[in-house]
Amino acid sequence: MNFTASQIAELVSGTVEGNINTKVNRLSKIEEGTEGSLSFLANPKYTPFLYTTDASITLVSDSFVPEKEFKTTLIRVSDPYEAFSKLLEHYNQIQKQHSSEIAQTAIISEAATIAKTVFIGDYSQIGAKTSLKDHVVIHPQVYIGNNVSIGENTVIHTGARIHDDSVIGNNCVIHSNAVVGADGFGWAPNENGSYDKVPQTGNVILGDFVDIGANTTIDRATLGSTKIGKGVKLDNLIQIGHNVEIGEHTVIAAQTGVAGSTKIGTHCQIGGQVGISGHLTIGNQVGIQAKSGILKNIKDNSKIMGYPAFEYSAFNKAYVHFRNLHTHITDLQTLKKKLNHE
Amino acid sequence: MNFTASQIAELVSGTVEGNINTKVNRLSKIEEGTEGSLSFLANPKYTPFLYTTDASITLVSDSFVPEKEFKTTLIRVSDPYEAFSKLLEHYNQIQKQHSSEIAQTAIISEAATIAKTVFIGDYSQIGAKTSLKDHVVIHPQVYIGNNVSIGENTVIHTGARIHDDSVIGNNCVIHSNAVVGADGFGWAPNENGSYDKVPQTGNVILGDFVDIGANTTIDRATLGSTKIGKGVKLDNLIQIGHNVEIGEHTVIAAQTGVAGSTKIGTHCQIGGQVGISGHLTIGNQVGIQAKSGILKNIKDNSKIMGYPAFEYSAFNKAYVHFRNLHTHITDLQTLKKKLNHE
Amino acid sequence: MNFTASQIAELVSGTVEGNINTKVNRLSKIEEGTEGSLSFLANPKYTPFLYTTDASITLVSDSFVPEKEFKTTLIRVSDPYEAFSKLLEHYNQIQKQHSSEIAQTAIISEAATIAKTVFIGDYSQIGAKTSLKDHVVIHPQVYIGNNVSIGENTVIHTGARIHDDSVIGNNCVIHSNAVVGADGFGWAPNENGSYDKVPQTGNVILGDFVDIGANTTIDRATLGSTKIGKGVKLDNLIQIGHNVEIGEHTVIAAQTGVAGSTKIGTHCQIGGQVGISGHLTIGNQVGIQAKSGILKNIKDNSKIMGYPAFEYSAFNKAYVHFRNLHTHITDLQTLKKKLNHE
Repeated sequence: MNFTASQIAELVSGTVEGNINTKVNRLSKIEEGTEGSLSFLANPKYTPFLYTTDASITLVSDSFVPEKEFKTTLIRVSDPYEAFSKLLEHYNQIQKQHSSEIAQTAIISEAATIAKTVFIGDYSQIGAKTSLKDHVVIHPQVYIGNNVSIGENTVIHTGARIHDDSVIGNNCVIHSNAVVGADGFGWAPNENGSYDKVPQTGNVILGDFVDIGANTTIDRATLGSTKIGKGVKLDNLIQIGHNVEIGEHTVIAAQTGVAGSTKIGTHCQIGGQVGISGHLTIGNQVGIQAKSGILKNIKDNSKIMGYPAFEYSAFNKAYVHFRNLHTHITDLQTLKKKLNHE
Repeated sequence: MNFTASQIAELVSGTVEGNINTKVNRLSKIEEGTEGSLSFLANPKYTPFLYTTDASITLVSDSFVPEKEFKTTLIRVSDPYEAFSKLLEHYNQIQKQHSSEIAQTAIISEAATIAKTVFIGDYSQIGAKTSLKDHVVIHPQVYIGNNVSIGENTVIHTGARIHDDSVIGNNCVIHSNAVVGADGFGWAPNENGSYDKVPQTGNVILGDFVDIGANTTIDRATLGSTKIGKGVKLDNLIQIGHNVEIGEHTVIAAQTGVAGSTKIGTHCQIGGQVGISGHLTIGNQVGIQAKSGILKNIKDNSKIMGYPAFEYSAFNKAYVHFRNLHTHITDLQTLKKKLNHE
Repeated sequence: MNFTASQIAELVSGTVEGNINTKVNRLSKIEEGTEGSLSFLANPKYTPFLYTTDASITLVSDSFVPEKEFKTTLIRVSDPYEAFSKLLEHYNQIQKQHSSEIAQTAIISEAATIAKTVFIGDYSQIGAKTSLKDHVVIHPQVYIGNNVSIGENTVIHTGARIHDDSVIGNNCVIHSNAVVGADGFGWAPNENGSYDKVPQTGNVILGDFVDIGANTTIDRATLGSTKIGKGVKLDNLIQIGHNVEIGEHTVIAAQTGVAGSTKIGTHCQIGGQVGISGHLTIGNQVGIQAKSGILKNIKDNSKIMGYPAFEYSAFNKAYVHFRNLHTHITDLQTLKKKLNHE
């Protein structure tokens, strides 16, 4: 979609300096500006780029005084960073807009309840007793099973799989190829040395404003529900085991795994590639450094690292010594010789 | 599906105490019971929940004597836990039942061989020379390539991709978005500093009763076969490299990776996020702790941890000292000063 | 596809010794030969297998003199390994050949530009303003968004998702269920303790000859582009964050994650399950051992290991002492007692 300088100026309450018909269709950093992009100059450190940028339009401060020639069309505003953020937000809104339309190739159970404002893309499938609330967007090639509930404004991206009985809140985003509600990994060893499947009869419940990354997997509960609290953000390729519960506004980076029945508190920040054992309780506002492995319960407000993880600064202190272990052990051996020879 | 108390009682050879028409459509723990759920009371510790549970039906022991009022309908049986397990198993059976039906939108090669009892969902695709045996269930939006063989009772969930030449045993389950038989990661460095592809001409063979988790990837062999033995259970997001062989009844937790040509024995238990190098031999009944990294061959019956991994209890002993390293090094430095000053 | 011994002999300029009508349809190692397979004998160590192999055809050297009976049909060539490699390459070419055909069930925007030699499989979808160059192969059930550009000879496997604005070079391969261009993980904490989404307005650019493994995810940039250089090979289940840049001919093994805005140099070799923090610069020709975690910039030609990672041989030296830490600490305590008693 193209916007002219005058349209942009109106959006951000700014003044155009240059050709008001200059067109842009994307956003860029000023140092990476190209024809058709709009950028901004907020930090004076970046001023030199203004004279060389190929960005078609640049947001600058009302007080900016150029010292050389430049090609870009200026839009003057009181706060360029704020104005740029406003445009980003606007971009985001446009991206999310979908007409209310159901593709002819979508296969929708007659027993599903679909609000009038829903968008459903080609080759997507909606099961029986499933309900999609207002402004839900189902991109193409999505599978949604039976008895699923999806709240208002939620967006499901192409290739995501939402299994039977899942409950998805309002304003959630589920990215491509994520799998919600596959069977948990429950196996009972039997006397023959093989394993019997423990039936996984529960479901997955996502609160409002939950984001699930691409190729992330959230298993259904054995009994009851796997619960992802309001505002939780999960990055890509994360594994959430059966019956896990994650508290509100906890954020987890890519490739982390949480084993079955563990409860994680609210407002935690968990790094990438972390592993958390099953049946643990992690407190509120806990910080877990990337790649840590958690084998026991963790108290509120802890900051931990390592595998098995312990207190963050203690880990770092110990690790400095580990790096110098060769020197320390050489010292030790020298002392030993000295003492034994005395 | 709804069941009445009298239907349940018949299934578990029990006696209803209360309204025989009470309906349930799911299973729950007694402390999480809600209207429409069936739960059980086996451990006396949970008895207080009986008086407060919202579960519509609760299985209790023949000998149970209530001490307060309660709302739930009772079904008395000799062993409530066993009866509940029986219902779980029954649930599992129902879940697996599919009519023999082939969706009109499924695209099936004329050169495929499909048993009469097979179910194939919408938008799934079956390639040439592929054979599906009795009671195979192919959920919607599955891709199955050419020359694939799928054994009796095997279930392939939505979004799974089974590439050409794969051989899948009987009674297997392949979960959503798993990829079986993509090319192995084989690259030969050339004189220009870039890489030439080593053609991956082999296939993947899964034995009977193999479970493959959601978003797990199993690469085809360079030559010959990547082999997953009978009864092997793989959790979600696991990577199995080309020409890997995994022995019968080995169980691997989520996000573990096994590099090319490694052979893993039978009855191993491998934790999550483990990494195993290529061209290794891991013995039978080996236990590998989560997050370990394996760089050399491992003998039968070993239990190992760490990266690089070594004997489990030795790792833990060493790690205790690591946690206290600052104290130890301070001690060492004190001794050193003392000796040097003497 | 079946080939006769005489057809194979012609392909590799060899001479048949045995039945010229013997048919094969796949390649095997000599020790794993089965009826219908073609193998080779290059290393004399494997000669005993020639007398027992079930391979229907075996490539042997012109100078080979058998000392026992054997069943396999021989094809004599000057260099059996080279001849076998030639057949592998031939196999690879055949695999890649696709007729120029667009499935009737493929949904292609009228505003897309599709070269005449393109193959598009069933139920795949191509968005508006997207262009597919000559000999592009889009397997079935692929999703390609709007404004995507895909270069000549590139192959997109079943279930891959290519989001809006992605630029894919020539001769790339994107494996099943990979996701290119999903939103980056950008969240700004707000005063309520929850997170606001940072709009992800950029795209992903792949150079020529890039390979992306199954279920790998490459996020679009916040602003600008996530860039994967020419000849880069990414294995399965890898996570590449927003605005990451990877230099030419760098190779990364499975399950590694690279956090946002990190720049990786050219010709690096990065092991599996490595984690690299955000906003770092990794030099050229850097070797990173599997499972390492990188928290700071790394210089050209470094070889590193551990978490946090440091120089490879220093890590190994320190780790030897870690393994023996119990002995060392016991020594230390003995010395301490001795000194304190003196």
